[in-house]
Amino acid sequence: MMSTTDTETYTVDAIMDTIESNNYHIYFEDSLTALRTFVANGNYSRFFVLTDENTAQYCLPLLREKLGDPENFDLIEIPAGEESKDIDFCIGVWKMLIDFGADRQSLLINLGGGVISDLGGFAASTFKRGIDFVHVPTTLLSQVDASVGGKTGIDIDSIKNIIGTFTQPKAVFIEQQFLKTLPARQILSGNAEMLKHGLICDEEYWNLLKTSDLENPTAALVYKSVQIKNKIVLEDPHEKNIRKALNFGHTIGHAVETWSLINDKDSLSHGEAIAIGMICEAYLAHKKTGLSAAELEEITRTLTNLYPRYELKMEHSATLLEYMLKDKKNQNGKINCTLLSTIGQFNIDNVCTNDELLEGLNYYASL
Amino acid sequence: MMSTTDTETYTVDAIMDTIESNNYHIYFEDSLTALRTFVANGNYSRFFVLTDENTAQYCLPLLREKLGDPENFDLIEIPAGEESKDIDFCIGVWKMLIDFGADRQSLLINLGGGVISDLGGFAASTFKRGIDFVHVPTTLLSQVDASVGGKTGIDIDSIKNIIGTFTQPKAVFIEQQFLKTLPARQILSGNAEMLKHGLICDEEYWNLLKTSDLENPTAALVYKSVQIKNKIVLEDPHEKNIRKALNFGHTIGHAVETWSLINDKDSLSHGEAIAIGMICEAYLAHKKTGLSAAELEEITRTLTNLYPRYELKMEHSATLLEYMLKDKKNQNGKINCTLLSTIGQFNIDNVCTNDELLEGLNYYASL
Repeated sequence: MMSTTDTETYTVDAIMDTIESNNYHIYFEDSLTALRTFVANGNYSRFFVLTDENTAQYCLPLLREKLGDPENFDLIEIPAGEESKDIDFCIGVWKMLIDFGADRQSLLINLGGGVISDLGGFAASTFKRGIDFVHVPTTLLSQVDASVGGKTGIDIDSIKNIIGTFTQPKAVFIEQQFLKTLPARQILSGNAEMLKHGLICDEEYWNLLKTSDLENPTAALVYKSVQIKNKIVLEDPHEKNIRKALNFGHTIGHAVETWSLINDKDSLSHGEAIAIGMICEAYLAHKKTGLSAAELEEITRTLTNLYPRYELKMEHSATLLEYMLKDKKNQNGKINCTLLSTIGQFNIDNVCTNDELLEGLNYYASL
Repeated sequence: MMSTTDTETYTVDAIMDTIESNNYHIYFEDSLTALRTFVANGNYSRFFVLTDENTAQYCLPLLREKLGDPENFDLIEIPAGEESKDIDFCIGVWKMLIDFGADRQSLLINLGGGVISDLGGFAASTFKRGIDFVHVPTTLLSQVDASVGGKTGIDIDSIKNIIGTFTQPKAVFIEQQFLKTLPARQILSGNAEMLKHGLICDEEYWNLLKTSDLENPTAALVYKSVQIKNKIVLEDPHEKNIRKALNFGHTIGHAVETWSLINDKDSLSHGEAIAIGMICEAYLAHKKTGLSAAELEEITRTLTNLYPRYELKMEHSATLLEYMLKDKKNQNGKINCTLLSTIGQFNIDNVCTNDELLEGLNYYASL
């Protein structure tokens, strides 16, 4: 069991300095100019930009303009959506790199959301035993979550991130302008991870988020979430202990997300699924690790106000438990959850029984 | 340009102590007992043995007997042969690990030749972002080459090791008994890498090998080759400089191997292809880096005496050059070779023109 004892407060109107991460930098201010400098000075032989059809349309023009359309740029485009994180698309990216003649001095620029950074990071970290890559996250979710921390991953049979590596990007460039291209539902998806950062580590930030206009998150809020996540992953890059804090809401949330991906025509977004997961796991935290009834109520109310209700049918819970059993966080076949002891304090490595997990699901279903 | 200035000599009748590599050990004496201890003390939740149909038949019984058939052992079997290194088989291994319920505390034991250790190492290093693996190499080639050095790799479209990682095994267990199960042609395949070790680093060892009964290599000879390879990879694990020494014969050899894999019914073994590559590249070394005519003649004679002649048709050379162009060792689209300055001294990063490479191929073809 572990929790942060850190009482440091983050100011939300701080100058957004470049953040130092694990041997790389995360750029905020005028970040695409920083990318241009990186590309010019990097001694790379070739540049590849991985996009999906959306980022190719909405984000690539700005990137091209800022970079001055350099030579040796080739595009690799995959369809938008979580389905593209499948190994088959990864093989497609590898084959395009082969066909383009990419060598070990090539740089892959991942322009997109979490699917692009996770898949692109994995493809690059394994191509010819590893080429350099950078992230230009274009969704709120990828800015505050996927692009920071050095996890890469792809899916097999809809099992999320079952294959991946721990490999750090060479840099991350966070450009606020891209958020303006996003539909509200995608912003809301990113909000879930920001709210999680408050819940696990920083009550003050949680309180601030509750009263903020989350549909239009300020650059300072994004910056603060990146600070929180970066602090955690720097302390524990390979998820041996405190990085597990970030899994709050994800044991149940990932299972719900997988279910929805397979069964729903209009699948849940990652954030929508994680919001459900956080409600269920807040219930478990109340039962197991001391989260008060008032706090459970506060978390439940905040999240159900923000996110649309999802019909969780209890007759599907056996399948959900099956997905949870395949979760990477498990040990010795036991399902492991990160819970809260209070808002702002996490508690890792809680083995949950099937009955407890069913109770958690049932809590959400009966709201 | 670089070459070893090391004048240390290796004794071939040394006691075969455990060799220390990059945070792991390579066991020789009574190595399967060492494996049993490793398995017993390793705090693993589950054990998986990756075999091919040959090692399942000839090597697995001894492994089982020595390990006392512990609980929690599951087998994953793939067909024998280089074709099994394809990404499709890797996906098969991942899916079996998923189906068996492998968690992050699982250990994968790679029982087989280079295909098993390369593929198994890659599958393990990426499954759930990395589980532990050990190698029990059962061919001479994998004992002196693939199992040492932390390279993992799989093929796509017959392009060898185009995808992979640098990940160290947790231990390597070299068991001489397994060599007795091998056909002569497989022993000869391993001999090529041993001869290469002499050519690049140790003239004395090369002279010793020339007069040894290579069909029945002694444990001391195997040990010495592992020592040489381990010394190089420890100095340069990620192949930034001197590890490239090990690529001697491989730029042309890999291309010939790929050609044969695609076109011949009875494909060349790795060693047979590398022997051809070493002859062609010795010719380039004579032309470019000072290898004497007498040394070229000596290398050519030794290798052509040991290995069957292969009909290298010059009308296929354009295709061979295409394969060489896709080689991982290239930079900026230029084909890069490791050559020799004399027997026992290597010379890395030699850019070779198409004409030079064609001359090298032609040298072999006109023998």
